[in-house]
Amino acid sequence: MNLEQALAMIEPLDAASLQKAQERLDRLAIPRGSLGRLLDIGRQMAGITRQLKPRISRKRIFTLAADHGVVAEGVSAFPKEVTTQMVFNFLRGGAGINVLGRHAGAEVQVVDIGVDYDFPQLEGLTRRKVARGTRNMTREPAMTRDETMQAIEVGIELVREAVAEGVDIVGTGDMGIGNTTPSSAIIAAFSGLPVESVTSRGTGISDAGLAAKISAIKRALALNQPDPRDPIDVLAKVGGLEIAGIAGLVISAAAHRIPAVIDGFISTAGALIACELNPVISQYLFAAHLSVEKGHRVMLERLKLKPLLDLDLRLGEGTGAALGMFIVEAGVKVLTEMLTFEEAQVTDGQQI
Amino acid sequence: MNLEQALAMIEPLDAASLQKAQERLDRLAIPRGSLGRLLDIGRQMAGITRQLKPRISRKRIFTLAADHGVVAEGVSAFPKEVTTQMVFNFLRGGAGINVLGRHAGAEVQVVDIGVDYDFPQLEGLTRRKVARGTRNMTREPAMTRDETMQAIEVGIELVREAVAEGVDIVGTGDMGIGNTTPSSAIIAAFSGLPVESVTSRGTGISDAGLAAKISAIKRALALNQPDPRDPIDVLAKVGGLEIAGIAGLVISAAAHRIPAVIDGFISTAGALIACELNPVISQYLFAAHLSVEKGHRVMLERLKLKPLLDLDLRLGEGTGAALGMFIVEAGVKVLTEMLTFEEAQVTDGQQI
Repeated sequence: MNLEQALAMIEPLDAASLQKAQERLDRLAIPRGSLGRLLDIGRQMAGITRQLKPRISRKRIFTLAADHGVVAEGVSAFPKEVTTQMVFNFLRGGAGINVLGRHAGAEVQVVDIGVDYDFPQLEGLTRRKVARGTRNMTREPAMTRDETMQAIEVGIELVREAVAEGVDIVGTGDMGIGNTTPSSAIIAAFSGLPVESVTSRGTGISDAGLAAKISAIKRALALNQPDPRDPIDVLAKVGGLEIAGIAGLVISAAAHRIPAVIDGFISTAGALIACELNPVISQYLFAAHLSVEKGHRVMLERLKLKPLLDLDLRLGEGTGAALGMFIVEAGVKVLTEMLTFEEAQVTDGQQI
Repeated sequence: MNLEQALAMIEPLDAASLQKAQERLDRLAIPRGSLGRLLDIGRQMAGITRQLKPRISRKRIFTLAADHGVVAEGVSAFPKEVTTQMVFNFLRGGAGINVLGRHAGAEVQVVDIGVDYDFPQLEGLTRRKVARGTRNMTREPAMTRDETMQAIEVGIELVREAVAEGVDIVGTGDMGIGNTTPSSAIIAAFSGLPVESVTSRGTGISDAGLAAKISAIKRALALNQPDPRDPIDVLAKVGGLEIAGIAGLVISAAAHRIPAVIDGFISTAGALIACELNPVISQYLFAAHLSVEKGHRVMLERLKLKPLLDLDLRLGEGTGAALGMFIVEAGVKVLTEMLTFEEAQVTDGQQI
């Protein structure tokens, strides 16, 4: 399935399902509205799935790994090789996403979409490499338009395959040393805000490192002149392969009418690209958490998404998505498993 | 086990365990600190349990039900009978706490500690009734000092029994029509703040209902003159039987060196009584969420606890505690299941 086909499948949430779900939620044997955002989640899930009894039976988080040429500009505390090393850690099961994915009952699918290392065939690794990392965006566009489209379509296909296997909710995740730099560049390009106001310390760099990072983003934007009216242009010039893949995941989730739980800053950069292509997509999204990266809040406001959690996370990998998925599932169960006043034979309240 | 015995068992968290846990957390193969509050939870759990590999194998949420004489003053949108009806709903498995407890993998123990109804022996109901509800605190003290001590000791015993059965984390919950009124009265008594600033709409009352509620609390405080230096006096005069029981749960958790995840406004009122008796107890607590009730924030600030979740919940029953327990468990697994840089053969970052 290509991008055009996926976009053509996307429709707004179903109004009738939203309304019927709301009617049931209003009759649950609780003070009206007292389960707060869990009720909103239940209603949204009915609208997404077109079902009053949506089921979550199989959950999958995609952790897309890729390298970034801009690392040559000294934007990260970690060497590029760590992307590869962390892929091996994911396969070993000892990383944050393994632990939190297991905790949330979600499968974790690790995907090489653009790591600068030739992985052999390995148990647990999905090989969909588009290129061995991006180019250094301070010197040339990070990707060609063709590479960008390929990476988006990897994401689209991953979700199409997952849905065929019975997955009914997906989470997004990333691994890529240097990838807060393109994420900040993307939101700077769309928002027009000063680079300083959307750029933080990523893995934990010093004041000098942060200055180098901001400089690299400014130079990349000045050189490439990404066009904010053309999201693919922004993504190609100052984005990344995993960010493009995440955009594809999110587009495909909306096309297949399943929810996507987006992780932190890098995942939201991918979601932003998707929603700039078609704002309806945001109706299919749940923002798992608010990252420590300050550009993340700007992205979420642009997407009109309110994060479910605020736990000072800034790891990525899909770790926040794993926790967020548990909350989304809670909202579904509130809709589908709780009894109404009538069913539970409980007296409703009266206005006093 | 009585209150005096339980209080005598309570010690601060173990400094050596806290330090050793921090050392391991600092070596996890992630940018230092990037799992935010999950790392804090992992460390705290090591300090609580005195173990570097704390385990959560059996989780239990206690939902303590009781009635309140102050309901006669028109403080709730719901009639008093709903406390009883909701107990039956809990036993039927169709209430919020049943659904979210199952979702979090926690047992739910429903306890009649003071409902104004004579329950027969029923599958799933623990009968520890101290009295058939409190008295109307606008006319006399809600409880005698003896009733108060009995209710606290019910909570202490419930956790002692649970620990003997292998429970290693407990959550608190409440059911009691009218019980935001004593909760607001308790925080008003301790903080000295105006009643208006710590009183909200509970189950969803109108402006007139809110005025009646504030008036009732003011009259109760003026009549009873609870002494904030004597937490048992505050609890007896303007508290409730389930609030006393929750204080006992929390005290007993600290005495038995297991964590207690406290739910919302009513549970935190109970935790506040416990921590006014011995501030060390707060080291054993996790505040699950921030309630919509405005007095809750005041309580949490007094306890120096930061809520894990903020999902606009205001139901009680232990529903927030169920969700919070999942987050606490995530923090434990981060400590015990993730690999360090050395173990995962990942290159650590350098300061740039």
